[in-house]
Amino acid sequence: MQQSEEALASSVTNLDNDDLEAVLLADEGTASAFLRLLPHPADVVEALRAVAVKEWPRLLRLVGDDSERAETVALLEEDERGRLLELLAPEEIGQLIKNLDSDDATDVLEDLEPSEQKEALLSLLPHERAQVEDLLRYEPDTAGGIMQVERAQVKQGETVDDAVARVRALVEDDIQVQVVYVVDDEERLIGVVDIAKLLLHRKEKKIADLVDPVIATVQPDVDQEQVAHLFKKYGIFSLPVVDREGRLLGRILHDDVIDVVVEEAEEDALKQAGTSSEELLYRDRVFAIARVRLPWLIVTLMGSMVSAKLIHLYAGVLNTAIVLAAFVPVVTAMGGNVGTQSSTILTRGLATGRVDMRDLLSVVLRELRVGLLMGLVCGAAVGGIAILFFSDGKLALGFVVFAAMVCAMTVAATVGTLAPAIMKRAGIDPAIASGPFVTTANDSIGIVIYLSTALFFLERLK
Amino acid sequence: MQQSEEALASSVTNLDNDDLEAVLLADEGTASAFLRLLPHPADVVEALRAVAVKEWPRLLRLVGDDSERAETVALLEEDERGRLLELLAPEEIGQLIKNLDSDDATDVLEDLEPSEQKEALLSLLPHERAQVEDLLRYEPDTAGGIMQVERAQVKQGETVDDAVARVRALVEDDIQVQVVYVVDDEERLIGVVDIAKLLLHRKEKKIADLVDPVIATVQPDVDQEQVAHLFKKYGIFSLPVVDREGRLLGRILHDDVIDVVVEEAEEDALKQAGTSSEELLYRDRVFAIARVRLPWLIVTLMGSMVSAKLIHLYAGVLNTAIVLAAFVPVVTAMGGNVGTQSSTILTRGLATGRVDMRDLLSVVLRELRVGLLMGLVCGAAVGGIAILFFSDGKLALGFVVFAAMVCAMTVAATVGTLAPAIMKRAGIDPAIASGPFVTTANDSIGIVIYLSTALFFLERLK
Repeated sequence: MQQSEEALASSVTNLDNDDLEAVLLADEGTASAFLRLLPHPADVVEALRAVAVKEWPRLLRLVGDDSERAETVALLEEDERGRLLELLAPEEIGQLIKNLDSDDATDVLEDLEPSEQKEALLSLLPHERAQVEDLLRYEPDTAGGIMQVERAQVKQGETVDDAVARVRALVEDDIQVQVVYVVDDEERLIGVVDIAKLLLHRKEKKIADLVDPVIATVQPDVDQEQVAHLFKKYGIFSLPVVDREGRLLGRILHDDVIDVVVEEAEEDALKQAGTSSEELLYRDRVFAIARVRLPWLIVTLMGSMVSAKLIHLYAGVLNTAIVLAAFVPVVTAMGGNVGTQSSTILTRGLATGRVDMRDLLSVVLRELRVGLLMGLVCGAAVGGIAILFFSDGKLALGFVVFAAMVCAMTVAATVGTLAPAIMKRAGIDPAIASGPFVTTANDSIGIVIYLSTALFFLERLK
Repeated sequence: MQQSEEALASSVTNLDNDDLEAVLLADEGTASAFLRLLPHPADVVEALRAVAVKEWPRLLRLVGDDSERAETVALLEEDERGRLLELLAPEEIGQLIKNLDSDDATDVLEDLEPSEQKEALLSLLPHERAQVEDLLRYEPDTAGGIMQVERAQVKQGETVDDAVARVRALVEDDIQVQVVYVVDDEERLIGVVDIAKLLLHRKEKKIADLVDPVIATVQPDVDQEQVAHLFKKYGIFSLPVVDREGRLLGRILHDDVIDVVVEEAEEDALKQAGTSSEELLYRDRVFAIARVRLPWLIVTLMGSMVSAKLIHLYAGVLNTAIVLAAFVPVVTAMGGNVGTQSSTILTRGLATGRVDMRDLLSVVLRELRVGLLMGLVCGAAVGGIAILFFSDGKLALGFVVFAAMVCAMTVAATVGTLAPAIMKRAGIDPAIASGPFVTTANDSIGIVIYLSTALFFLERLK
């Protein structure tokens, strides 16, 4: 029996999207039976993604019980949840919120647009209202924005038995507990007791005798990236959030932190390409998406106008030997690529703490040498191609291209290393700003180096 | 007392690198007293990073006890640990390994070069030898490579009391326990019991009555990225690793998964720039670093040779109106940028499951419209600049640049969307390959569009 149930669960969670769609859009009985077979709300989320959002409200009503339904909604991505909530009746949203942990309830309320609706929903939460209102005050991407208020908390003078009673109440509400927080009479956090320790001591034992020091705490206005850094540094499961006076406000659990790490990596990747996760909320609204992407394009456009002006200034050189024009994109592309490699290495090094600003000189010298070495290899390759295929065996073009690429790639590696360091010192996020800056600067520098070299040997290029 | 200790701990963990260096390189008494003040091995790691690796062995010997020293070494990055181990005596390494959890002990052994040394060290581990040898068989970036064998495990027929005894043994060894794994007589995993539940039931209660289903398992050869995906999907704290027959082999803890997520994001960022975290191991070895970066540069170099050849073919057009050369880098840069935006959006969408291959047509149509819209804006800007600053008010150049940019940016957005989709279907990681491919293809397409447009209106450009 056990085995066949497992096999069934494994087969239902491995259906492809076409099959999922067929099952979910079949008659109500089939869809309902299928959804009940799914072992976890996360599997329901994956199934829902196989069909259009307009089907979600109907399918959600077929999901087992209130708490599973609420958990499913909590696991949706922010933009998906926003679109679903627009389709649900206020009483349905209220029912969801009642069944969610405080942090997830807050996320749902944050996604709701008109404030009257928010007000009406808050009135459905007689017990938790004050808590959720408190949580709504914090920015979503801070420690306060991702913490939950549910936790096991005891006073120093209480016993193991008291702590167990606190844990029991939470476990019955399906809330994860790993540690019991110990506070003094002013609610200031003074330590923690791992619940494994509660197992190993007699009921009458005073909590004060078991308490371990707290490894780390944060205040609610701390950025979520810093929260993730603390989880990674200390390898912790949960992190208590305290106010300025050290009073315990809530806790952040590790699963929200994995979301933060993934979210921040995602945001970095999008920002480096000159857009942001904001545009994911716009779906097919072409004008809104273009508005997110255009500012960065315009900045790089201005940079490339500098390149255009430089080439314009060297028009005489190009006119004398038009074949030179062919290698302009090669010099700029390779300078850009080498610069990107160097700036990525430094940016990641600064972000992970692997590189300290005091090491900068040695890093610049290393990158300069790497750039020089790669310039010699690439310059020789392109120079050879130039001689063989672009100038009928005459050596001058090949030499100019070789010399220019060696110089341009060496300088590009140096610029690629210095730019993020300068950005960091100026307080600008090097991950975002250095990409277009490095590429644009190296384009212009490469053009000047290349066409100046050509000018110097112009007699031989005719 | 409590307060002043906390204040001291907070002040020692917030020293800057110069101060850390001064304290650690002072006399032995000062350095030793300081290291003992640090509240956590993770703080010791941060302090060590302020001084050269050659000082680490001496400083490590000053650290409190064996287990704290071992934990410190476990928290170092792989490249840092490798350099430290070269400086330690075999008996010191043996002492470290004895005090580490099985997964960390395996990591240390993996970093050791000569296999005789590994053999000698394994003989120091009479009890754990077989376990560690088993773990060494798995690739480092698989579930088997990051799991640990330590866990609380009971048979179905045992009682709460038996499970508590198992938990006690682990807690006394400083091993984190959140769940007890329940196995059948063939060691096959059949369920879990959260340790909070053990607190709430009588000692004699049968484990079989408390057991919950396992949410997810992995086999040891599964990639660590897939492991991270399961943690994120289900919001779990730990993941059991089982063999083909379902027998429990070990477990993966959430803190190692945060490391995996950070590591994978790092590796993606480096790979997109055409390098890899491998080069971080090479420090200042310029030739080794260049060897890591060159293959990708050579590929992009070949791509840019196509651009060069195309310009060469259009030399007659450029010779007729040399001012056209000025806008070649503008057209290629903007095509590359728009293509990168579109390909990043699709690549991230595919990676997170937000976009399904079946949505491809609608995504392509959306990106095409976004590209067209942005092309109209950027084309108008550059066209205007061309008329005002590059051709003394004559309209033809402006019109050619405008038309070419609108076409090139629309096509670039389409190529940027299609390329990662094609890569994915071909089984190539779109995050890595699509960057240079998209940029290179769009460079060539942009040049052809631009110079063909110019050719068509050549009479008016003279």
